[in-house]
Amino acid sequence: MQAEIITIGDEILIGQIVDSNSAFIAKELNKIGVSVYQITSIQDDKQHILNALQESNRRSQVVIITGGLGPTKDDITKHTLCHYFEDTLKQNKTVLSHIEMLFKKFVSTPISDLNRLQALVPTKAEVLHNSFGTAPGLWMEKDGTSFISLPGVPFEMKGLITNEVLPRIIEKYERPHIIHKTIMTYGLGESAIAMKIENWENNLPEEIKLAYLPSLGRVRLRLTAKGKNKEQLQTRVNNEAKKLYPLIGDIIYGEEEDDNLEAVIGKMLTQKQMTLASAESFTGGKIAEQLTAISGASKYFKGTVVSYSTESKINVLGVDENLVKEHSVVSEEVAVAMAKNVKQILNSDFAVATTGNAGPTKGDSEEPVGTVFIAISTPELTFAQKFTMGNHRERIVQKSVNKAFEMLQKEILKF
Amino acid sequence: MQAEIITIGDEILIGQIVDSNSAFIAKELNKIGVSVYQITSIQDDKQHILNALQESNRRSQVVIITGGLGPTKDDITKHTLCHYFEDTLKQNKTVLSHIEMLFKKFVSTPISDLNRLQALVPTKAEVLHNSFGTAPGLWMEKDGTSFISLPGVPFEMKGLITNEVLPRIIEKYERPHIIHKTIMTYGLGESAIAMKIENWENNLPEEIKLAYLPSLGRVRLRLTAKGKNKEQLQTRVNNEAKKLYPLIGDIIYGEEEDDNLEAVIGKMLTQKQMTLASAESFTGGKIAEQLTAISGASKYFKGTVVSYSTESKINVLGVDENLVKEHSVVSEEVAVAMAKNVKQILNSDFAVATTGNAGPTKGDSEEPVGTVFIAISTPELTFAQKFTMGNHRERIVQKSVNKAFEMLQKEILKF
Repeated sequence: MQAEIITIGDEILIGQIVDSNSAFIAKELNKIGVSVYQITSIQDDKQHILNALQESNRRSQVVIITGGLGPTKDDITKHTLCHYFEDTLKQNKTVLSHIEMLFKKFVSTPISDLNRLQALVPTKAEVLHNSFGTAPGLWMEKDGTSFISLPGVPFEMKGLITNEVLPRIIEKYERPHIIHKTIMTYGLGESAIAMKIENWENNLPEEIKLAYLPSLGRVRLRLTAKGKNKEQLQTRVNNEAKKLYPLIGDIIYGEEEDDNLEAVIGKMLTQKQMTLASAESFTGGKIAEQLTAISGASKYFKGTVVSYSTESKINVLGVDENLVKEHSVVSEEVAVAMAKNVKQILNSDFAVATTGNAGPTKGDSEEPVGTVFIAISTPELTFAQKFTMGNHRERIVQKSVNKAFEMLQKEILKF
Repeated sequence: MQAEIITIGDEILIGQIVDSNSAFIAKELNKIGVSVYQITSIQDDKQHILNALQESNRRSQVVIITGGLGPTKDDITKHTLCHYFEDTLKQNKTVLSHIEMLFKKFVSTPISDLNRLQALVPTKAEVLHNSFGTAPGLWMEKDGTSFISLPGVPFEMKGLITNEVLPRIIEKYERPHIIHKTIMTYGLGESAIAMKIENWENNLPEEIKLAYLPSLGRVRLRLTAKGKNKEQLQTRVNNEAKKLYPLIGDIIYGEEEDDNLEAVIGKMLTQKQMTLASAESFTGGKIAEQLTAISGASKYFKGTVVSYSTESKINVLGVDENLVKEHSVVSEEVAVAMAKNVKQILNSDFAVATTGNAGPTKGDSEEPVGTVFIAISTPELTFAQKFTMGNHRERIVQKSVNKAFEMLQKEILKF
């Protein structure tokens, strides 16, 4: 059971947007045992779309197409589908009244003829209800392949996939089970890990595949198994994962597909009924943002002070002005003071603080670009560590945020 | 002059990572006049890689391949290239000594045989120096097509594209000019804009294409022109863009490809030598994070207080406890107090504050999910507006951040 994804839109081919739709669709298809063979991104060009439809028709049973369903002239997917399926467009009354309802309820401008055009659908298509927008999904079939055309707006596409597309695929196709397990590690490089688990890797059962996914100080180890018996597969994958602990247990911090360290920290704090605050300089609120991206964070996350200027470190966080003068604003002493003070001000059990220089210019300190201090304050102690994070602004910030969560998790574990 | 991008990696096809490499490469190629015909993402599978190489060979003069060059067993790109080019791998001494140098300088673990394997390259390949990592780029040619294989690690890939690949393409191929201009708008929907500019759109010169790119309360209008005479193209695009101002000038906030509202605000504040601070509740630091993502933000951005809990709104921001009791924490009055107080505490000219309920649970207030208040404080006044942002956590936050920047920019304009 094999699927393909075709994303249509000039904006992808000129690099103006990153195609995140495909990742979502691929993930959802995988969960129900459908392998994605290929993702193809193409321009809003009739002949090119026709070629892509033809090629995918030969290869896959399900083809999901996103984009090009908007009301404006640059969107040609619907017309091209009509050409490919030798079909014509006809107004669909249910879609039209849905569009009229949406406009009445949510839009301040009156409905236009352009908006009404979105109610035109190919006569051979099954219409998939788009509760979040005006362009409906379309399900069409040819030579044993299902073609499913969806709008490119991510949140409309997601609604359609979840509510309309997946249930139909599950009903229509028999699928094997695909099991993924991702072991999350930090603090050791890809090849150093590979050396430590070499024997284990060589002895993996044939139906289990291993992949290394390195990123900014972390490596994810992904185990994939495919087969008919779901429980048996799950057991085998779990057994193999367990064998990793004696080998690299010290660097493993989670083993769920969507685990990230922030979520792990959130779970730990919730369980222990303890709280966290942060004081951020060059990380500019990124620690807070990643923490609060998790629903329910208000239970354990008290807040952040982003003290981007030296002045605010003194005024808001109450860092001693002399401390700054003596040690410079990028120093172990200031990091420690920031963590201690924010913990007190926000009345939390733990605190994390960052001060450093992310470049490209030097800012308020003499420390070279890439020098950062990360401080952790716990109910028992406060300490800071110095790091050299390279010279790439974005990477310095993200590596430091990752490192801060790593340090934090190790400390929270002790309580 | 046409190119393709092939990204290799199971992690893309199972949706574990979003392929952002392609967007970067497409953007860079476009800048030098190379059109990207297609982006294809495929699995780490020998036959599939071979098929993709063959197909792209028929269509395009330049094929850029990323991924599958790591030191571990799941990476098979190099071996597959050898098969396709009827070639063998041979140790490259320059690459080997570069790998040894990197390990000595940056890695705490000793170099292993696995790492040394990365110095093996196809004998027919021109080696492209990867200053940031151990896997070199490879440039190989077949039947008039250049195949360029690069590591998938984004920052290594970016270095290779910029320093090695683009200069070689510029030297080797004659290219037309591609001009893009993107007009950034807010506050009006895609089809409402289309109605207002219908005549203009119908009268666009043939060589200029228009695309609508809507996203969370903003619509970007992208003009693209392609031809031999760069200056003439630029003039024509500029002339057409100018004609938009009498039609929709009130909703345009910028017209550079990379313009975002934060950057526009940054430029305005820098020019006026004025400063900004923020107090964020449910936006969790995202306003601060987007502001500080811009290099040089420390000149005008004083900092943020992320007061995620009611307690911190009172303790850190000094919001009157009675005000919270009387009006609830999600209210116009609290938003106004947050903006006023953070402006004073951080000693800034402007401040923006957010309080609201992003869901999925109700939190500390009785307001329904999606209700938010955004307050702006200027040197002259402070006010807050109420919005209903739907019921999707991520979208509530991002729409509110966008709206906050929109309100802020309008106020800063007055000074």
